[in-house]
Amino acid sequence: MIRTYAYKDIKIEEIFAREEEKTNVADVVSEIIAEVRKGGDAALKRYAEQFDGAAPAVFEVSKEERAAAYAQADAAFLEILKEAAAHIRAFHEKQKRTDFVLTEREGVVLGQKIIPLDRVGLYVPGGTASYPSTVLMDCIPAKIAGVKEVCMVTPAKDGKLNPDIIAAAEIAGVDRIFRIGGAQAVAALACGTESIPRVDKIVGPGNAFVAEAKKQVFGQVSIDMIAGPSEILVIADGNSDAEIIAADLLSQAEHDKMASAVLVTESEALAQAVTAELERQIALLPRAEIARASIDNNGKIILVKDIAEAIAVSNEIAPEHLEVSVDEPFRYLADIRHAGSIFLGRNAPEALGDYFAGPNHTLPTSGTARFSSPLGVDDFVKRSSFTYYTKEALTAEAEKIGFFARREGLEAHARSALVRKDKGVIQ
Amino acid sequence: MIRTYAYKDIKIEEIFAREEEKTNVADVVSEIIAEVRKGGDAALKRYAEQFDGAAPAVFEVSKEERAAAYAQADAAFLEILKEAAAHIRAFHEKQKRTDFVLTEREGVVLGQKIIPLDRVGLYVPGGTASYPSTVLMDCIPAKIAGVKEVCMVTPAKDGKLNPDIIAAAEIAGVDRIFRIGGAQAVAALACGTESIPRVDKIVGPGNAFVAEAKKQVFGQVSIDMIAGPSEILVIADGNSDAEIIAADLLSQAEHDKMASAVLVTESEALAQAVTAELERQIALLPRAEIARASIDNNGKIILVKDIAEAIAVSNEIAPEHLEVSVDEPFRYLADIRHAGSIFLGRNAPEALGDYFAGPNHTLPTSGTARFSSPLGVDDFVKRSSFTYYTKEALTAEAEKIGFFARREGLEAHARSALVRKDKGVIQ
Repeated sequence: MIRTYAYKDIKIEEIFAREEEKTNVADVVSEIIAEVRKGGDAALKRYAEQFDGAAPAVFEVSKEERAAAYAQADAAFLEILKEAAAHIRAFHEKQKRTDFVLTEREGVVLGQKIIPLDRVGLYVPGGTASYPSTVLMDCIPAKIAGVKEVCMVTPAKDGKLNPDIIAAAEIAGVDRIFRIGGAQAVAALACGTESIPRVDKIVGPGNAFVAEAKKQVFGQVSIDMIAGPSEILVIADGNSDAEIIAADLLSQAEHDKMASAVLVTESEALAQAVTAELERQIALLPRAEIARASIDNNGKIILVKDIAEAIAVSNEIAPEHLEVSVDEPFRYLADIRHAGSIFLGRNAPEALGDYFAGPNHTLPTSGTARFSSPLGVDDFVKRSSFTYYTKEALTAEAEKIGFFARREGLEAHARSALVRKDKGVIQ
Repeated sequence: MIRTYAYKDIKIEEIFAREEEKTNVADVVSEIIAEVRKGGDAALKRYAEQFDGAAPAVFEVSKEERAAAYAQADAAFLEILKEAAAHIRAFHEKQKRTDFVLTEREGVVLGQKIIPLDRVGLYVPGGTASYPSTVLMDCIPAKIAGVKEVCMVTPAKDGKLNPDIIAAAEIAGVDRIFRIGGAQAVAALACGTESIPRVDKIVGPGNAFVAEAKKQVFGQVSIDMIAGPSEILVIADGNSDAEIIAADLLSQAEHDKMASAVLVTESEALAQAVTAELERQIALLPRAEIARASIDNNGKIILVKDIAEAIAVSNEIAPEHLEVSVDEPFRYLADIRHAGSIFLGRNAPEALGDYFAGPNHTLPTSGTARFSSPLGVDDFVKRSSFTYYTKEALTAEAEKIGFFARREGLEAHARSALVRKDKGVIQ
């Protein structure tokens, strides 16, 4: 059963501090990366035989195979995928940025260019945690950013591709698909092999081996994030419907035993009603065992004196998903400082954001919303600055640059400015 | 002497691949972090006694001390610092972003908030690599972003503060200063102690121990980057002045024996003249020994057939600093895809960007300009998305969300949407 705490009795820093299992994952992964770097495709084939039973004849999925898999996809589902993609596209289009230029100073032109990454890798897990929604969420911002080539890697189960994943890939605009998974797929994207091109960034969720591989290749390539277990924090006033609030808490709890669902409310009556509703609804869920473990171990209800205090608690916790179940939610929007994705009012369940509304569902977890953002177009571009001076403008500033550089003990820096003003100064 | 290569004879991936020394830095640093986490100020004092000879009575530098140090600063230098700060401010003000909202769909409000980080830590090295320019470059974008508290840590040499650093901190708007350096200072910023507040992000350069500490606390807090040795790539046509080009190459080479300076040119005559000029100018430098080692080991001249090919080489290398010494540099700007900071034309030495022009000098190294950006206002904010639906809007989409969620095997997700449409659906 979920436990209820008074605000003063709870240690905020323990809310999302769940112990992770320790294994020898790091060693296994570092060997896989070294082997793929050295052996290329041959190493990939060895791992495919070892882990998946058989290696595919070719890693890349052909246009014909993609078309055939797409044709197999459920027609009703395709329509929903397309509508979701349109919403996701509309939201992320607004994230696009433009170059700028400054010309205020005489003879000086300064500016910033926004440049898409050349090539991005998208990891898509196989098996039960294989989510077409994530294909949309990870690929669409990359294509809007202008990435030329999005390369998806995903394990084929008994050689067969998941048609929902292929359908989502087609709709999102994935350029190339490779049937390979695990740490070896991440290694291939980071290092490049004969079949699989090296990418500049790797995004997407995966199991512990995939996450560790992303961690290990980080620096050599960019990565999105190492996501922790999912989290929801619901702020609810006394007029909230307990059945609905419980359903929302369970929508996170069903993900994973380590997932965390927290209700912050001013109403003891609601706390009691939600506690009872959780018990009733858990029993009715196909994933009841997972939801049960999550609620019992990580579920919490925190009682506060009013909604303002609830917002303060939420800001301390910095949840991945925040629901604000009150009548006038927009009055609190300015006060919410730390949350990945915010769901305002009584009609915005977090699941809306997972599939359909438009904002991204790849979000910062474990309190990292204090300093991290949802995945977005920004993740698929980088900035470069540029500087142009006329001879006159440089001459006017050369002595100051020289002074500054010498103050820092960097004579060659000083000379590179001064020699443009007075040829022959380097003697 | 610098060595010259034909484009076809050079392995691009080896250009900035310099071997790093391996030491036991990681173990030492992880012990320091654990001790500071456990012991707080007491641990910091032990380390100050061990590494700096004596622990300060108080870590925080008082207002009076800051004012006294500022008063000691060189008046001419203060004027230059203020002008540089104004230029840096003007450039970074243009990087500020605004919130957006989408209201196109009936009953649906979606948006994105840009929120500054609460508190940022700025590491400033002591000793010879103590650069007031970096205080400006690291603090000004944070303050423009709206960060409430920038906390600078810097080691005091024999208890004394460097007045140039304090002057730069005053001008840049640093909020609090603590006299502490090394891995223990990074640990204090990441974990918080009695005297030093926990921050959300740590920026700034440092020695191998500081860099390792930033790496180890990454995830718990955000960091800017782990910078490698400095790099410059100069593209120069045959009309370029060899004395000037050599001076520019040396402005990077003097930083560090591991620094790397590369000239890419279509002119053999220029290659020869620059080779000779480098030999002449190195001998005239106070840091001749460092520049000599850098040029001999990492300096290269690459001969190409034309400027277009030079741009292609540069895009493959993705240098930290790129100079384009040609008559009409803006014609190439669109073709430059990967470079941290770009200096256009014959009057823009890289040193201009280090001190005075306005763009940031904290830049991606080691080819990471392929996917990373200069430090900027973006580094000190994060985004949050928000979603609001009316009852009618949610009702219209609930079945689709339910379908999508069930397709992914997540029944509780489906129910959280469907229960808002039909109370009593959860049976």
